[in-house]
Amino acid sequence: MNDRFLRACRLEPVDSTPVWFMRQAGRYMPEYRALRARYSMLELCRTPELAAEVTLQPLRFGLDAAIVFADILLPLEPMGAPFEFAAGEGPVIHHPIRDLDAIDRLRLVDPDESLGYVLQAIRILRSELQVPLIGFAGAPFTLASYLVEGGRSSQFARTRRLMLAEPEAWNRLMGKLTEVVRRFLRAQIEAGAQAVQLFDSWVGALGPDDYACSVAPHMRTLLADLETTGVPVIHFGTGNPALLDPMARAGGTVMGIDWRVRLDDAWRRVGFHKAVQGNLDPAVMIAPREVIQCKAREVLAQAAGRPGHVFNLGHGITPDVPPDEVAALVDFVHTQSPSLRSRRAVPAS
Amino acid sequence: MNDRFLRACRLEPVDSTPVWFMRQAGRYMPEYRALRARYSMLELCRTPELAAEVTLQPLRFGLDAAIVFADILLPLEPMGAPFEFAAGEGPVIHHPIRDLDAIDRLRLVDPDESLGYVLQAIRILRSELQVPLIGFAGAPFTLASYLVEGGRSSQFARTRRLMLAEPEAWNRLMGKLTEVVRRFLRAQIEAGAQAVQLFDSWVGALGPDDYACSVAPHMRTLLADLETTGVPVIHFGTGNPALLDPMARAGGTVMGIDWRVRLDDAWRRVGFHKAVQGNLDPAVMIAPREVIQCKAREVLAQAAGRPGHVFNLGHGITPDVPPDEVAALVDFVHTQSPSLRSRRAVPAS
Repeated sequence: MNDRFLRACRLEPVDSTPVWFMRQAGRYMPEYRALRARYSMLELCRTPELAAEVTLQPLRFGLDAAIVFADILLPLEPMGAPFEFAAGEGPVIHHPIRDLDAIDRLRLVDPDESLGYVLQAIRILRSELQVPLIGFAGAPFTLASYLVEGGRSSQFARTRRLMLAEPEAWNRLMGKLTEVVRRFLRAQIEAGAQAVQLFDSWVGALGPDDYACSVAPHMRTLLADLETTGVPVIHFGTGNPALLDPMARAGGTVMGIDWRVRLDDAWRRVGFHKAVQGNLDPAVMIAPREVIQCKAREVLAQAAGRPGHVFNLGHGITPDVPPDEVAALVDFVHTQSPSLRSRRAVPAS
Repeated sequence: MNDRFLRACRLEPVDSTPVWFMRQAGRYMPEYRALRARYSMLELCRTPELAAEVTLQPLRFGLDAAIVFADILLPLEPMGAPFEFAAGEGPVIHHPIRDLDAIDRLRLVDPDESLGYVLQAIRILRSELQVPLIGFAGAPFTLASYLVEGGRSSQFARTRRLMLAEPEAWNRLMGKLTEVVRRFLRAQIEAGAQAVQLFDSWVGALGPDDYACSVAPHMRTLLADLETTGVPVIHFGTGNPALLDPMARAGGTVMGIDWRVRLDDAWRRVGFHKAVQGNLDPAVMIAPREVIQCKAREVLAQAAGRPGHVFNLGHGITPDVPPDEVAALVDFVHTQSPSLRSRRAVPAS
């Protein structure tokens, strides 16, 4: 069993820096596209054997962790907010949630009943994997923004308006989502997930004061509960480095770092008592290999061989990345990181 | 002549905090929509009398500055990259610029010849205005991202790829855009603009290292040249507070501050030797008036009555904002800011 990833999450020394990639099972892989030609995205998610198969596909690159194939929106349908993936447009939620009545009609989900297919995929995977398995969920703010906007958005104006102008409705919505995410991640951990990641993909739309007032209280509740399970909790948000401090204060064993900030600055702000994950710019992955390696070396150098770094991109891998570059980068991180570590080595106390 | 805005740009004391809004002439105003029912966006821009009329429309709210009605993409057509505004999709550039040949074919623009309509609008406005007139342009990175992507983008992957993988092509593109923007803003200043703003709307897609390597050298050239004119240069970028330090180092008399960072933190990082502009969250403008005023008071309190604050939103005003709220906010800033100032007053040295 390769446990580099779990050791790094716990700030323990490792032989070389562990590496996995957000969205590592996905459209850039020919094997994935072949399956998607036969099944929709949601069919793959909802068929445990297929979800497990897709999860395993990228492991041929030598990655140090697997992440169960699923989508952050899956809990929304059993909550009472069905959605579909419109071609080229991303998810569309048929009846956006914009007032207190709609919020009150949202149901608290029993994951065993309505999301059992994800749990079953986790059970299948645990019997096959030689690397740790990560479970995940969208964070409450990000799920709320999908519910309120009805899909993707560039500015999240409706979400921010609800948050600022109707704090009671907002807090009731966030409270429900927090409880659903809490139950879902606990169920994933019980099914066998050895770490979980919270994706707060759109939280960067907020400034630090609004985050502290309207999001952090819910995140504290959620993260405090998850941390009692003992599995590492990766807390990832994108888009606004000014949120790193309040997000780290809200909780998480490992902070996921967006590419738009230097890893060394980010880690200093988060505090060295937490592990960090990241943060190569995903756009680099379609550049020539020497550029990828140069930028990856910078990330490793900023981590400075300090225990507690999980190498990853600063956001999901994009569909145009050549699979060979993924394999080459995994190998590069594994072979280069030990020398960076030894260069920093000082006599231990 | 109301010179609060220019005094604040020069860090001089003012009787009350000056206020204007990015995109203050626009779709939220019924007078603007009435004109847009008869003329396209580009017709308004290209007819100096109409551009001047639109520029004047929001001044009924008591604003302390006007900004000439134009679009940051206007220089692209004479450079050889025509575009149109597709309904609901934003601008579409018919032939995106993605290789060295296409970059080499881009023309350096003579603003008097090909952008004379903007300069004429400025001349008309100066004869009518009782408040200072701001000229503006898109910053080179933002213009480059439109040229490379062919329109709006969420991740700017193609732009970042060109920047990282083909630095020679990238620097040639940025060099041309820098020279065009320099000429255009100098021409606006000669025509009568009393301040200019550079909009680096999409630069937040970058991290600080890539900004420092691939954007800052061009911005330093541009800003150093513009600062010799003696008119205030407002340097505005959105989306990534981690860029504030390198952006301020690149130059600008006034730094425009995005809403996703606290104004007091931003000003401290920029340095108190520069003025700041911002940074109320634009989403607040569709909340109830007491919420708008509460959030505006926070911005004023963070500016702490220090000379050198221009009140503005942290990004453009959105089409759904009630015009009455704009008028009420202008009045609120004017009436509340003197008391915040006096509260801070300490004996001057």
